[in-house]
Amino acid sequence: MPTPACLIDWVKYQKNCDSLLTRIKKNGICLRAMTKTHKTIEGTLYQLYGSQGIQNLDLKQLQDTNKIVISTMTEAEFFASHGFTDILYPYPPSVDKLKRAYELTKAGKRMSFSVDNLDVLENLEKFAAEKDVQFRVYIDMDPCEHRTGIEPNNPLGLELAKRISQSKHLILHGIYVHAGNSYHSTKSEEIKKVAQLERDLVVGFKEKLKEHGYDVPVVAVGSTPTATQMADNMQGVNEFHPGNYTCFDAHQAAIGTCSLDDCAATVLTRVVSTHQVPYPRMVIDAGGFALSKDLGPTHIVNQEHPYDKRQFGVVVGHPELWITSVSQEVGIIVASPNHQLDVTKFPVGTLLRIIPNHSCYSSYCYEKLYIVKDDTVIDQWKTCPRH
Amino acid sequence: MPTPACLIDWVKYQKNCDSLLTRIKKNGICLRAMTKTHKTIEGTLYQLYGSQGIQNLDLKQLQDTNKIVISTMTEAEFFASHGFTDILYPYPPSVDKLKRAYELTKAGKRMSFSVDNLDVLENLEKFAAEKDVQFRVYIDMDPCEHRTGIEPNNPLGLELAKRISQSKHLILHGIYVHAGNSYHSTKSEEIKKVAQLERDLVVGFKEKLKEHGYDVPVVAVGSTPTATQMADNMQGVNEFHPGNYTCFDAHQAAIGTCSLDDCAATVLTRVVSTHQVPYPRMVIDAGGFALSKDLGPTHIVNQEHPYDKRQFGVVVGHPELWITSVSQEVGIIVASPNHQLDVTKFPVGTLLRIIPNHSCYSSYCYEKLYIVKDDTVIDQWKTCPRH
Repeated sequence: MPTPACLIDWVKYQKNCDSLLTRIKKNGICLRAMTKTHKTIEGTLYQLYGSQGIQNLDLKQLQDTNKIVISTMTEAEFFASHGFTDILYPYPPSVDKLKRAYELTKAGKRMSFSVDNLDVLENLEKFAAEKDVQFRVYIDMDPCEHRTGIEPNNPLGLELAKRISQSKHLILHGIYVHAGNSYHSTKSEEIKKVAQLERDLVVGFKEKLKEHGYDVPVVAVGSTPTATQMADNMQGVNEFHPGNYTCFDAHQAAIGTCSLDDCAATVLTRVVSTHQVPYPRMVIDAGGFALSKDLGPTHIVNQEHPYDKRQFGVVVGHPELWITSVSQEVGIIVASPNHQLDVTKFPVGTLLRIIPNHSCYSSYCYEKLYIVKDDTVIDQWKTCPRH
Repeated sequence: MPTPACLIDWVKYQKNCDSLLTRIKKNGICLRAMTKTHKTIEGTLYQLYGSQGIQNLDLKQLQDTNKIVISTMTEAEFFASHGFTDILYPYPPSVDKLKRAYELTKAGKRMSFSVDNLDVLENLEKFAAEKDVQFRVYIDMDPCEHRTGIEPNNPLGLELAKRISQSKHLILHGIYVHAGNSYHSTKSEEIKKVAQLERDLVVGFKEKLKEHGYDVPVVAVGSTPTATQMADNMQGVNEFHPGNYTCFDAHQAAIGTCSLDDCAATVLTRVVSTHQVPYPRMVIDAGGFALSKDLGPTHIVNQEHPYDKRQFGVVVGHPELWITSVSQEVGIIVASPNHQLDVTKFPVGTLLRIIPNHSCYSSYCYEKLYIVKDDTVIDQWKTCPRH
């Protein structure tokens, strides 16, 4: 087995997928699978249809349920070439994205976009008119993260709805919010509050649009923390689009979304050298291109958990070990405070598994993911190409 | 042109390659090109042979000069499949790496490894004996970075030399050091000191080995800062292995290795949306998968340069703009302190170029690099696959 490698624990992955599906179905909510955490066809099918539901699947027969949200147009093309037909690009679409989306519509795919700005909308309308195609549009709301999206009281929201409704090339399809700010929580109670605000934001905006005569069939929320620590009142939401919950990671465990044991993605690495001078340390073959340079939940400090110390991941089964630095291809492990590292216990060649800080970033370092069950590789999933 | 894209300014790239070649040749030093910054065949040929020297190249006829140092075995295989024959893997080789290296030796490639530990050496010797092959070995020295390598006064150094010399499957080929600690400098004078220490370390160790009867033909140093701000006395060094100097980046500019204008690699991005509420900001389609999450020279503070503010890159021509946050696929640009951002000056669709903090990390986000001259794309270079 080559190292570093990204392993997906099959039992945990299935459990994470099934668990979310059960919870949202109970609330009458449909899943639009966010694919960016693993970027694999197989992983997405299990997200959408659960561990029991992907036998003899014909995606073309499932156009109403194969809803995905991708993060790059390369990802859109990758999934489209494997039969997916209902694709949302969740950022404001620039003209280069639209050209690629147009090629997909010509191949029979249904493309949706989110808009948060009049200029963006005008460009989209102009493009759609020139090509004489129709695109579905979500109005993107700002969950107080101040990344993309509009604030609910901004009159721009109504103006966008009006312009979309007036266009024969655009369909006012939904309201979209992704509460990325939930990642800044420190515990599950805080996440629940963000989840309630997220729901109230989009449902409130739907009602406002309704008062002005605009009908919006889809009300979509997202983010793994708010999908996992769901708000008590989810009434009015009918689409969910989280992605990280499939694998989870050390960040999610730190903020209370899951336990470390729920994390399905780990990076397999070998101890490639050990040293005693000037202090005991181990060199592993997992660096910034295996774990990513994401520092994880740096907003959480002064706790005694292994995942809150600004390290580059959590060594499974060894809270006494800290990955204190990574260069491109190697990492350095030392003892955590109040511990001694006895390197003779980790001879050269020792295999270790590391829960990455952010699985969306770490899995992107690999051409394929190894699916493991009881320490046996049972499958390999090819990941989407880079930009 | 799709965005984000990684552009290589052809004039700057050539100048950086030629400049280093001229400087080391003047000192009688041979280049072993570190390929990990761009991971392309074309970029490596220009590193090795300069802008004037790659016409009608037949790599197989150039076995003595096509020396490269790679960072992953996938990279070794990628370069080997394109004719490169003299390949150094610069980390302690674990058994999975050796198996892949063995396949390359069967295909006629010359593989070298670095060792810094008796266990690593024993594993290497055992493997080479079992397969009845010969590998070249470098002894890896610690430049006070405490990553890989041994300290010069550690008796382990002599023991490694002895064991290597006794093995009929290993050839004591060189002493190796990569002063990664030079990245922690704050100005060129500091780098020069590190460069002198780096040279003195390996030359001193060569003399020590000589006193004990061991001949080491190659004395190799590296790191872009120490190759660029070279020590006054380089006597005794005959191999250099930097890589980042080909593209440079905001980190190198911050520590005094180059100017921002020398940086050959930039990330092309579009303004995809703008907002006024709650403060003026622009959304760009370059996030952590386009720029990387490398924070750059965070050890440099309290300066008034645009590259020392812990941002995710430097916007070319706009020191008044700061990239303050990146999520997976988008970044946020706001005004730097004491400036106002007038978003009407950057309408949706505006193209911007960003000098990344660390070009080794950012270029790895792309399947190909676009080579540009006078704002025209003149070539595309395919990058090596991921792990």
